[in-house]
Amino acid sequence: MSNNKNALEIKAVDTTERLTKLRALFRKEKYNLTAYVVPSEDAHQSEYTAACDARRAFISGFSGSAGLAVVSTDTAALFTDGRYFLQASKQLDHNWTLMKQGIPDVPTWQEYLVQNLPKNSRIGIDPTLIMACDAKTLKESLGKIGSSLVSTEENLIDLVWGDARPPRPCNPVNVLPLKYTGRSHEDKIANLREELSKENYYGFVVSALDEIAWLFNIRGSDVQYNPVLFAYALVTKDDIILYIDENKLSSEVKEHLGSNVKFRPYNAVFEDLKHLNDKFKNDNQKLLISTRTSYALALAAGEENTESSRSPILDAKAIKNEVELEGMRQCHLRDAAAVVNYFAWLEEQFSAGNVLNEIDGANRLEKFREEQEDFVGLSFDTISASGPNGAIIHYSPEPKTCAVIDPNLLYLCDSGGQYKNGTTDVTRTIHFGKPTEQEKRAFTRVLQGHIAIDRAIFPKGTTGYLLDVLARTSLWRDGLDFRHGTGHGVGCYLNVHEGPHGIGTRIVFNDVPLQAGMTVTNEPGYYEDGKFGIRIETVVLVREVDTPCNFGDRGYLGFEHITLVPIQTKLVDVSLLNPIEHKWINDYNAECFQKVSPFLKPDSPGFRWLERETAALK
Amino acid sequence: MSNNKNALEIKAVDTTERLTKLRALFRKEKYNLTAYVVPSEDAHQSEYTAACDARRAFISGFSGSAGLAVVSTDTAALFTDGRYFLQASKQLDHNWTLMKQGIPDVPTWQEYLVQNLPKNSRIGIDPTLIMACDAKTLKESLGKIGSSLVSTEENLIDLVWGDARPPRPCNPVNVLPLKYTGRSHEDKIANLREELSKENYYGFVVSALDEIAWLFNIRGSDVQYNPVLFAYALVTKDDIILYIDENKLSSEVKEHLGSNVKFRPYNAVFEDLKHLNDKFKNDNQKLLISTRTSYALALAAGEENTESSRSPILDAKAIKNEVELEGMRQCHLRDAAAVVNYFAWLEEQFSAGNVLNEIDGANRLEKFREEQEDFVGLSFDTISASGPNGAIIHYSPEPKTCAVIDPNLLYLCDSGGQYKNGTTDVTRTIHFGKPTEQEKRAFTRVLQGHIAIDRAIFPKGTTGYLLDVLARTSLWRDGLDFRHGTGHGVGCYLNVHEGPHGIGTRIVFNDVPLQAGMTVTNEPGYYEDGKFGIRIETVVLVREVDTPCNFGDRGYLGFEHITLVPIQTKLVDVSLLNPIEHKWINDYNAECFQKVSPFLKPDSPGFRWLERETAALK
Repeated sequence: MSNNKNALEIKAVDTTERLTKLRALFRKEKYNLTAYVVPSEDAHQSEYTAACDARRAFISGFSGSAGLAVVSTDTAALFTDGRYFLQASKQLDHNWTLMKQGIPDVPTWQEYLVQNLPKNSRIGIDPTLIMACDAKTLKESLGKIGSSLVSTEENLIDLVWGDARPPRPCNPVNVLPLKYTGRSHEDKIANLREELSKENYYGFVVSALDEIAWLFNIRGSDVQYNPVLFAYALVTKDDIILYIDENKLSSEVKEHLGSNVKFRPYNAVFEDLKHLNDKFKNDNQKLLISTRTSYALALAAGEENTESSRSPILDAKAIKNEVELEGMRQCHLRDAAAVVNYFAWLEEQFSAGNVLNEIDGANRLEKFREEQEDFVGLSFDTISASGPNGAIIHYSPEPKTCAVIDPNLLYLCDSGGQYKNGTTDVTRTIHFGKPTEQEKRAFTRVLQGHIAIDRAIFPKGTTGYLLDVLARTSLWRDGLDFRHGTGHGVGCYLNVHEGPHGIGTRIVFNDVPLQAGMTVTNEPGYYEDGKFGIRIETVVLVREVDTPCNFGDRGYLGFEHITLVPIQTKLVDVSLLNPIEHKWINDYNAECFQKVSPFLKPDSPGFRWLERETAALK
Repeated sequence: MSNNKNALEIKAVDTTERLTKLRALFRKEKYNLTAYVVPSEDAHQSEYTAACDARRAFISGFSGSAGLAVVSTDTAALFTDGRYFLQASKQLDHNWTLMKQGIPDVPTWQEYLVQNLPKNSRIGIDPTLIMACDAKTLKESLGKIGSSLVSTEENLIDLVWGDARPPRPCNPVNVLPLKYTGRSHEDKIANLREELSKENYYGFVVSALDEIAWLFNIRGSDVQYNPVLFAYALVTKDDIILYIDENKLSSEVKEHLGSNVKFRPYNAVFEDLKHLNDKFKNDNQKLLISTRTSYALALAAGEENTESSRSPILDAKAIKNEVELEGMRQCHLRDAAAVVNYFAWLEEQFSAGNVLNEIDGANRLEKFREEQEDFVGLSFDTISASGPNGAIIHYSPEPKTCAVIDPNLLYLCDSGGQYKNGTTDVTRTIHFGKPTEQEKRAFTRVLQGHIAIDRAIFPKGTTGYLLDVLARTSLWRDGLDFRHGTGHGVGCYLNVHEGPHGIGTRIVFNDVPLQAGMTVTNEPGYYEDGKFGIRIETVVLVREVDTPCNFGDRGYLGFEHITLVPIQTKLVDVSLLNPIEHKWINDYNAECFQKVSPFLKPDSPGFRWLERETAALK
């Protein structure tokens, strides 16, 4: 999948009362604010957030996944990007101005604070919801016009929301046993401490939710689609402190964590870091924080006492061990069986003349996944998109508005599951009737890019930024392209989007060489507005490969595809293929049959569909 | 060609007396130096330098193209890279320590000044020989230990060198007529002024020699291989001043330049910039200088009065107009005829059992070029390399040490010419006997990379940094690679290496999208130490191309190859090719025959060789 999506509420929300209450708080002496900034992130900079953290949606009425609100004494502005212009314009009431990001001369929210609000303004923000580095830049530009960034101890939206605000989830935490993680949490922590001692750091504050889940080999269900739990952690030479609501922890979990792990309440992390401040004054050591840590955490620890870098846990987590890799392989086989069963079922429905909408499809697919061993839940909202809806990259069907799946149009299905042994993310584009020549040509160009990535062999040190072009050269030949990255990291029974690496045009991907043990998706696409969308997405593992030579003694890497859902040969324009590509398709589909058929009932519709769909392309 | 080379003098030079004289100057009151830094660059940061500017070679005895000397009161250190370790160790006498750059724990010359010289040192340097940005960084790191960078008004090496120093060349300047340049210098200057007025700059100091030659449509012969002349220029709203020894200028040249161009002596630029200083004090304008401008120029103009950026002339010069593009095409046809004649002649010599060394070959090739219309001279030292010498990327055969060309080994020939209508640069690797399977396989992998670049189609905005990977994927498949860039810009009857763009792994190439009208080489290679070198180099033009679609309305670009010397099919391992590559080779060779044969005498050895070598590969 390419990104986050949210439920589409198409009616505007009346925000007059909420805004009046908020502005009343501005005037309180301890605040004395000109404006208040409401980001959409939670305190952990999570991609998916819990309902209690949907503050920007509450105050503005706009429910999209990306956006930021600025409420001043007399204005209210909502900043979002092109994906959400239509949705925002429907959901915002008369109180709000929509600021269309990316349109020339529309300021960013940071520019707006400087250019559109009076000089010497006091701009309030909840410091837990903004990254320390962003707060620093913002303070500098506000300072130039005499304005200041005011950290409010309480979140003002929460005060307005009051009792109607959903409680922070406090779901029970589960232990993820060694047979799934391949490595004890003691070992991971020992490793982290080694890294810290190399640079003589006093300790590290873990603030990303998936990093905490990974480090302690625990999982939760506090956030939809992500098996994580609300917590912070502080790992120092002497202490391991987990900041968490202890009600979430059974005796089994506590036993698993062991006596070396101390527990403190979730929000006590701020208080504890402030106490550390004194310690640092008499000491030359510093605390390491991640570049994605909140301004609030950085303030608590004291900016002069911290150094920030990419989280060492982010890097460690990205490289899967052999147990995790094998778990990823296994869950992908079961997941493929579910997708195969679904496509076979869809075909049967259409043959029988039944009418199905996109949600019906997504629901049936979920049912097929539920039948699989170790399945826990979906890893994101299923994209089930017929014809033109496939061209909306972040499309998510909604019960009231979704389309009927037209068997005579391309059907794009991007979905994934959480399994105890791994996380899946697969997109296939299929046609139940007769595709047009244009559809076949575009599909084949996308497929050629997919094959070029799949077959790539590259020296160690190569980044996904450099490989991205391989996914595009065949499309470019026809003057086609796609406006998203080629691939993202995938967690192992964790978040479906995971860093620090990726294959894509974002320059940050040039900082991280691909390394053996990493997972990454291979998902080129092509989108023809108003007509169709094509994406072919497979999860691959980065593996060492043997090459005839080894120039420069660097060692060479390649990809192992673990998603094994066949490529529909009906959609391939054979005249565009070279023999290697032709053979790749047949080999891949044969591998799908060989590895996935054991997970299907013999003679079931899924089995027969798989057998037919994996027959060699002549 | 991949880089610069210098004559290899293998005996050490006695530098005792030179160093004694230099150190005597340290003690003069006005200097009072601890050490003196001697870079290898000239005042224009030229890649090739005149004999009078070879100061580092004079003081150290080391004649390689890259290196820097630091002489202190009691030490003398020469810093150079791996290409030159052997040469430097032979040329440096007992006074010198060789500092092998790139070897772990060997400091850079900047680190050496900080770590190996006493604190509070006074480090002398000729400020014309270091870029302003580098001087700034150096001053900061020296400042931390109380040391300072002292600009000496006279070059101390020149004082030591005395009368033995060759005079600065003062060769006559020639006009390059409109039929070659396609654009008047008045038009180019008007354009530059437009650029300057957009940003409200007072003017621009032109310091790169090829930029001056290009801007004024004049050429010279002050530096070997580069048709340039020593000069500076200052272009402001009101004035165009050429700082040049007027003796170089005939009345014809002066007439060409017109009455708007004023002349001042070469070194008067420093004085004039100092006078501008006062003007700027009463004025809000700034002078634009290039990031490659010398520290001396920046000091003269006053750092507070200047802004530096990539030279606007560098960018303008890189995009050739239609007249220049056609001139480049034409000279490449004649140049190809010379290379074809040479390879045919070589083959005849070997058939007759004659023994030839690498220099004999290079000289004969030069003779064939001299026969061509509009030929002016070579564009760089010919690389004529048999067998293992081909693996030395910066190899240049020398009379006393060069090898005999062995017809049973691969022969790599990288050469080019200056023509009044363009500059050429071509590498072909050929075999006069029976190549080994290893040689064929490696050659084919290089060729596949070459074809991938040649065939690439890409949207506007794409950089050579991103395309570079296409030249390597086929090599990587076999665990092979090459340690140089894939391509560099080529001047039009100017320097054979030209910026700002290029195809390669240097991140600066990611700042410059390829644009229609640019020239660039396509020269992947493979080098097997002690055995052979392979490089296939062709000059290509960036051109707009028609694609079936035009996604995002960006427009698409591709390459037009203008070097037309056949690819030796004997060296191709057909089993590795896909049908598109196979067809490309036959199409390319057929195009060579069609376009180059008219420049060969019918039935001459060259014509027959071309006919045979361009026969279709089955």
